[in-house]
Amino acid sequence: MAKQPKTAISPTREENYPEWYQQVIRAADLADLSPVRGCMVIKPWGWGIWENMQQALDRMFKDTGHENAYFPLFIPMSFLEKEAEHVDGFAKECAVVTHHRLEPGPDGGLVPAGELEEPLIVRPTSETIIGAMYAKWVQSHRDLPILINQWANVVRWELRTRMFLRTTEFLWQEGHTAHATEEEAVEETNKMLEVYADFAENWMAMPVIKGEKTAGERFPGAVSTLTIEAMMQDRKALQSGTSHFLGQNFSKAQGIQFQDQNGETCFAWTTSWGVSTRLIGALIMTHSDDDGLIVPPRLAPAQIILLPIHKLESEADVMEYCENLKKELEAQQFGGLPIRVKIDNRDIRGGEKNWQHIKRGVPLRVEVGPKDIEKGGVFVGRRDTGKKQGYDRKEFVSIAADILQEIQQELYDRALKLREDNTRAFNDFEEFAAYFTPKNEDEPEIHGGFAICHFVDCPEMEEKLKPLKVTARCIPLDRPANPGICIFTGQATDKIGIFAKAY
Amino acid sequence: MAKQPKTAISPTREENYPEWYQQVIRAADLADLSPVRGCMVIKPWGWGIWENMQQALDRMFKDTGHENAYFPLFIPMSFLEKEAEHVDGFAKECAVVTHHRLEPGPDGGLVPAGELEEPLIVRPTSETIIGAMYAKWVQSHRDLPILINQWANVVRWELRTRMFLRTTEFLWQEGHTAHATEEEAVEETNKMLEVYADFAENWMAMPVIKGEKTAGERFPGAVSTLTIEAMMQDRKALQSGTSHFLGQNFSKAQGIQFQDQNGETCFAWTTSWGVSTRLIGALIMTHSDDDGLIVPPRLAPAQIILLPIHKLESEADVMEYCENLKKELEAQQFGGLPIRVKIDNRDIRGGEKNWQHIKRGVPLRVEVGPKDIEKGGVFVGRRDTGKKQGYDRKEFVSIAADILQEIQQELYDRALKLREDNTRAFNDFEEFAAYFTPKNEDEPEIHGGFAICHFVDCPEMEEKLKPLKVTARCIPLDRPANPGICIFTGQATDKIGIFAKAY
Ligand SMILES: [Zn+2]
Ligand SMILES: [Zn+2]
Repeated sequence: MAKQPKTAISPTREENYPEWYQQVIRAADLADLSPVRGCMVIKPWGWGIWENMQQALDRMFKDTGHENAYFPLFIPMSFLEKEAEHVDGFAKECAVVTHHRLEPGPDGGLVPAGELEEPLIVRPTSETIIGAMYAKWVQSHRDLPILINQWANVVRWELRTRMFLRTTEFLWQEGHTAHATEEEAVEETNKMLEVYADFAENWMAMPVIKGEKTAGERFPGAVSTLTIEAMMQDRKALQSGTSHFLGQNFSKAQGIQFQDQNGETCFAWTTSWGVSTRLIGALIMTHSDDDGLIVPPRLAPAQIILLPIHKLESEADVMEYCENLKKELEAQQFGGLPIRVKIDNRDIRGGEKNWQHIKRGVPLRVEVGPKDIEKGGVFVGRRDTGKKQGYDRKEFVSIAADILQEIQQELYDRALKLREDNTRAFNDFEEFAAYFTPKNEDEPEIHGGFAICHFVDCPEMEEKLKPLKVTARCIPLDRPANPGICIFTGQATDKIGIFAKAY
Repeated sequence: MAKQPKTAISPTREENYPEWYQQVIRAADLADLSPVRGCMVIKPWGWGIWENMQQALDRMFKDTGHENAYFPLFIPMSFLEKEAEHVDGFAKECAVVTHHRLEPGPDGGLVPAGELEEPLIVRPTSETIIGAMYAKWVQSHRDLPILINQWANVVRWELRTRMFLRTTEFLWQEGHTAHATEEEAVEETNKMLEVYADFAENWMAMPVIKGEKTAGERFPGAVSTLTIEAMMQDRKALQSGTSHFLGQNFSKAQGIQFQDQNGETCFAWTTSWGVSTRLIGALIMTHSDDDGLIVPPRLAPAQIILLPIHKLESEADVMEYCENLKKELEAQQFGGLPIRVKIDNRDIRGGEKNWQHIKRGVPLRVEVGPKDIEKGGVFVGRRDTGKKQGYDRKEFVSIAADILQEIQQELYDRALKLREDNTRAFNDFEEFAAYFTPKNEDEPEIHGGFAICHFVDCPEMEEKLKPLKVTARCIPLDRPANPGICIFTGQATDKIGIFAKAY
């Protein structure tokens, strides 16, 4: 075997976590910078992961009674003027279309022409435009509920961007629902949080904490925002999906009214909920190691890569063996779908090829050479553990799905262990502050984690959190409120919060 | 049964075809106008058709070796300045982003702020931005071919818009490939035309003529443009998909260069190909009748709708029967996929409900009432023929897929007959002109069709076509060139063309 560097990714996580993240993306061929400031190109391997995420989520949305639709990319500026609070949150940094034509300029270049009477905003989120349509569609209680989801691109003008985590344009889904009663809307908000948690844990193999946001972290205009929060390997939190109960705030601003069964005119109760390509960032930072990406099998565009090893004279035999093996594996089901198998017969060095698939995080690599054929065997490398093992071919086919499931579980367990090892309860602010303070302030080492403590949601807390660069992540839903003392103010409180540095 | 108007759609096709088209869209609940000029909202039933189109095409693209990726929404203005010919075609009417912030204005409203150094164009098509990336990715002949497709929204500022056919924002896929040899790129161009023709005929049940565009109708910058052309029921042509051989024109403008096996630097050969939500317009105008939409079964979001008919006391029995019937039907395969069945148990009048599904074009409506249950039967209405028939329940389950296939075929046959009945060969320009002139010039009746004639592609032809509002649709691929006389110029020529009025 060719000599390889100790790890494929340099720097390692310990050495420089942010730079490691960028290098994993590059080495896995997930995405590339584009010539457009803050916008990235999602390459086929990255897109394949997103497609699998979309398909799984889309099925879950449909199973919970939702339909897809599509609303315009542009929002008239006047729509944003209507909603002061929402605008404060979203409309500040956005792409503004002011002209609808290009004309030849004086110096041979082009200049914008045809100024619009009213500027258009490229949607940063679609509440206002969707709300305007719902106001038109809803007349009677018979028109409710409306349970619509949209897969779309959105734009928020970001000053500091990072691939998948914060880009000017990103892709997401946004669910927007309208209901006749508060109870139904609250139920919807909770239901979609459960869908997101289910997806995160069972597809992404990423444990999450379900919770409610504090006032300061709420979606602008929402009555309450539910969130799933995951811990990355640098122990920072990443908000991975949110579900908002909007009360009647948006329906009042947008005039979503209906006649109820008694003929009375009421405002609808609305929700919205979304996840984005940010989930790919979460996936990378949850599972990858110093050799590159590790993709949870259920989301891997290829779950098994077959690597034919041959000299010219043995190529036909090896390829035939691989083609047959591929068909046999594809006839097996993993997670209710046929196993996804690819053959890589590109004409490049075997060592290099093998490393490419390690860096891309393919769950299982299967080498097949003339000797394997003689023995009727295969030689299998597991991405999660790095272990390599020979199998009888038939045996491998019959247990391939089980191995994939083992990997899926192993990744989840590892991530959960990391989170549990780095979650601490605090009763004392000094200890809390020390937890979030790196020993090396110039080049901070990986430190901190999730802190659990009693708190009172107040300006004093915010003041004490700010210098630590820590935020309240959520009030966890699975911890019953119980009496205690706020570590920020010393006041009695029964609120418990999760605090962390966050992406 | 409640009394119904003779036809559900008013006006009929004969009375006013363009208005009929709008009314079909409204009655089928496919789409709605939005508050944004020229942009529409695609409602769930319309989106469901698009989803089915996407899934079928996506599978075909993948089966022909393509991968999906995603490129930025925005294109720097300077990218368009580089390519004079392409810009003439596309960059004139487009959405121009000039600012990246909104700030409170003097009168309490918002004003654009944060002017960009270089304006950004919302992509009208992505040749330039994708080309820039390919130039970066391609170094060696080993990096070729690149076979990438993108599903995306694009914007072209249209003055006169019509839902699905011409909207400011629309959705499409754009394939962009780069090859080492001209031969390979030409082969790719042809292959994708075949994919589009296959999709149009076998999924949309829409017969198409495959052909090459004349110089005047070519994609700006292309060496040749292949097209599929379909005839709508008003006998106008609708260009339904195009596949462009771009030669080295774009690779030279964008610097897509590679070292070949001999170490020489060469420019790549590129192609692009696309279809859009316009196909939904084509589907509507190919199959619908004066009662509304007819969706070809393979693309229908629901292929069978079950309509429970019950009084309150029989509801449980009828619903149980329907749920079981649904499961039995879903266990059957049509076109390689499980049959798609929905139950409509909404609390609205039966007659109204039935008409809703007629207007939406659901292929089969199945009424189930207490009497049907007693007999172990179902009562089935076919959307294409309007025929209604009782079946034994088991029999219906066993032949449902066959009936769907019959409908699919029937729709294709009808559309083909319409085209054949309205296609004429011409040797004489006066007859040609008369063919394309309505008898009633104020309110033109449906007239004309496809004209086949010999022609020489020249300005004189264009001059004679212009007043007739007729264009050369294509040089059909399946008609071997043979000697004849151009009906526009009297010159000898072996070129044969299809001419028509077109969308
Ligand atoms: Zn808003
Ligand atoms: Zn161009």
